[in-house]
Amino acid sequence: MQEHAGTSLVATPALVIDESILDANIARTAEFVASAGLALRPHVKTHKSIEIARRQLAAGAVGITVATLSEAELFAEAGFDDIFIAYPLWIDESKTAILEHVLRLSSVILGVDSVDGVRQIARLGRARSGRLSLLVEVDSGHHRSGVQPQDAGTLAAAAQDAGLEVAGVFTFPGHSYSLETRESAARDEQRSLSIAAASLADRGIQPRIVSGGSTPSLEFVRSSILTEVRPGVYVFGDAQQWELGTTSPESIALTVLATVVSRSPGRIILDSGSKVLGADRGAYSSGFGRLLDYPDARITALSEHHATVVGPDLPLGSRVRVVPNHVCAAINLIDEYLVASADDRDRFGSWPIDARGRNR
Amino acid sequence: MQEHAGTSLVATPALVIDESILDANIARTAEFVASAGLALRPHVKTHKSIEIARRQLAAGAVGITVATLSEAELFAEAGFDDIFIAYPLWIDESKTAILEHVLRLSSVILGVDSVDGVRQIARLGRARSGRLSLLVEVDSGHHRSGVQPQDAGTLAAAAQDAGLEVAGVFTFPGHSYSLETRESAARDEQRSLSIAAASLADRGIQPRIVSGGSTPSLEFVRSSILTEVRPGVYVFGDAQQWELGTTSPESIALTVLATVVSRSPGRIILDSGSKVLGADRGAYSSGFGRLLDYPDARITALSEHHATVVGPDLPLGSRVRVVPNHVCAAINLIDEYLVASADDRDRFGSWPIDARGRNR
Repeated sequence: MQEHAGTSLVATPALVIDESILDANIARTAEFVASAGLALRPHVKTHKSIEIARRQLAAGAVGITVATLSEAELFAEAGFDDIFIAYPLWIDESKTAILEHVLRLSSVILGVDSVDGVRQIARLGRARSGRLSLLVEVDSGHHRSGVQPQDAGTLAAAAQDAGLEVAGVFTFPGHSYSLETRESAARDEQRSLSIAAASLADRGIQPRIVSGGSTPSLEFVRSSILTEVRPGVYVFGDAQQWELGTTSPESIALTVLATVVSRSPGRIILDSGSKVLGADRGAYSSGFGRLLDYPDARITALSEHHATVVGPDLPLGSRVRVVPNHVCAAINLIDEYLVASADDRDRFGSWPIDARGRNR
Repeated sequence: MQEHAGTSLVATPALVIDESILDANIARTAEFVASAGLALRPHVKTHKSIEIARRQLAAGAVGITVATLSEAELFAEAGFDDIFIAYPLWIDESKTAILEHVLRLSSVILGVDSVDGVRQIARLGRARSGRLSLLVEVDSGHHRSGVQPQDAGTLAAAAQDAGLEVAGVFTFPGHSYSLETRESAARDEQRSLSIAAASLADRGIQPRIVSGGSTPSLEFVRSSILTEVRPGVYVFGDAQQWELGTTSPESIALTVLATVVSRSPGRIILDSGSKVLGADRGAYSSGFGRLLDYPDARITALSEHHATVVGPDLPLGSRVRVVPNHVCAAINLIDEYLVASADDRDRFGSWPIDARGRNR
């Protein structure tokens, strides 16, 4: 960990991790998932950090999940050897060489949701034998990518016919991101994966991996069907999770340190704009993020370098801790974390955000 | 310009500039502003590129505008010597050394909107004499930072009393970003700057710079009060400007090259999610961006690596050109532009996004 001086010399806006809370979040979720009889394969797009992914493996994770081929490349080169790319990649000539490179370094599971996508993967050379397997993506209600659950077996059979190994099925119950649907989305996930797994079995393919799990639906997960879960945001928490009720302010491990740069009657302006917080805003969000130490404050507007805050009447130059709405977006906007040490919170180090920008 | 192979070897999502359109946009706005009798000081947060800023200067810009001290640092180190930081910076001990460094390299104009902010600047060493001046920020209706127009003179006088040079006043009429208010925001800007300039004159301070101008309000700008304008987005255009009617699809110089990775009845999924396009969405926006070659298509949902598109029924693996809603946000998410050469559109080069991530 590279050392920095105290916070007063830290130019704002800056991302700050509380290492004690981070470690507690990693341990708590690992214990919960283990006690549910499930494997944990955390999504590392939330932090894009080799250091944090290593801590997740040390706490018992079976491997990691990534969203893109370039994320897989970075983590494979860092020594991670069991990587699931939970995305229906289209492997054309722009991506073939990188995927073959990753396969020389790591076991890789690829998501698929179309026969054409499977054919593109089957064009890869024989070198990948034994290191590559597939999970069929199922739409469990989020209506993004994925096949209908009852069609999973047909696609799995086509993949086997093309000489590829099918490890099972997966889904992302993204419709869990609302105040009313966290539990019902978990039920949809369970039901869809159950139908999909049966559909594979009907074709004589026994799924060894049945993978689900978003952070909001995680507490409702059951192991009777699923074998593993892939939550991401739990390591940090964010304002979305706070407002969905899946975390509490005391468990939020990452904040943006910001400075009050302007004041007018009824509002203050912080230097943490959308180029640091990200512009994500759910239908249920109270604003564009939250102030950790002023829970009644509201961020009513956001431009690239200004956050307009209504509520606390703070002097110019004050520093506050802002919780981004969607931490996965915020961490992709900056090159390093400042880390308040678990041993001494006045001592700051830094970790690189290794996979920042690796989004293809 | 570093050379790349043809587009089929470009991994998507990727940012692509059409150099011919970029150069035409730079020339057209430079001519319009000159013919209006105004100076042009373009905001470079839109592109964060040394190459593009140089082209803007070559076309007649008098200097550049930046949003942050770290952007100023990068451009000053690249040889730019007339830089306006259009932001009410809070100069504390975390920023003093960087500002002094920038002042050794470039003339710097700082925005101010408070007496306390002025006092922080006045603490700087004498070394900055002659290279530093101030513009008082005025709120012309956007209700973000800035003093009320009639209060500008009081702040300017306080700055002079603190030994600082006041060059004039500025505003950002950001309320021009709506379908109904482009022209009225330009009138607000004119009126507010007129009051503010008179308020300085009342204190015996003759403003030599009266600075305004957003891209949506630019066409309504008049030189009777203003001396310069600071548009940014005009170099590229984006879906916001398209939908506001300030540009047409033929004049959009930057698109995100994306691949169709999934298909379901009624929708296709592109690999250009919010981690490439940004999540900005105005109240007037039709969706989360536009498809340049399919104007009737709508991007109805965006997650980090998925754009859900309703309209064109394109085969898997198809490549399309996506216009981000807010180009300033999109270009901050990636490290380089691919550039389709003006001489030969099949030849691709690349330019670094030099100030990507410099947001403090």
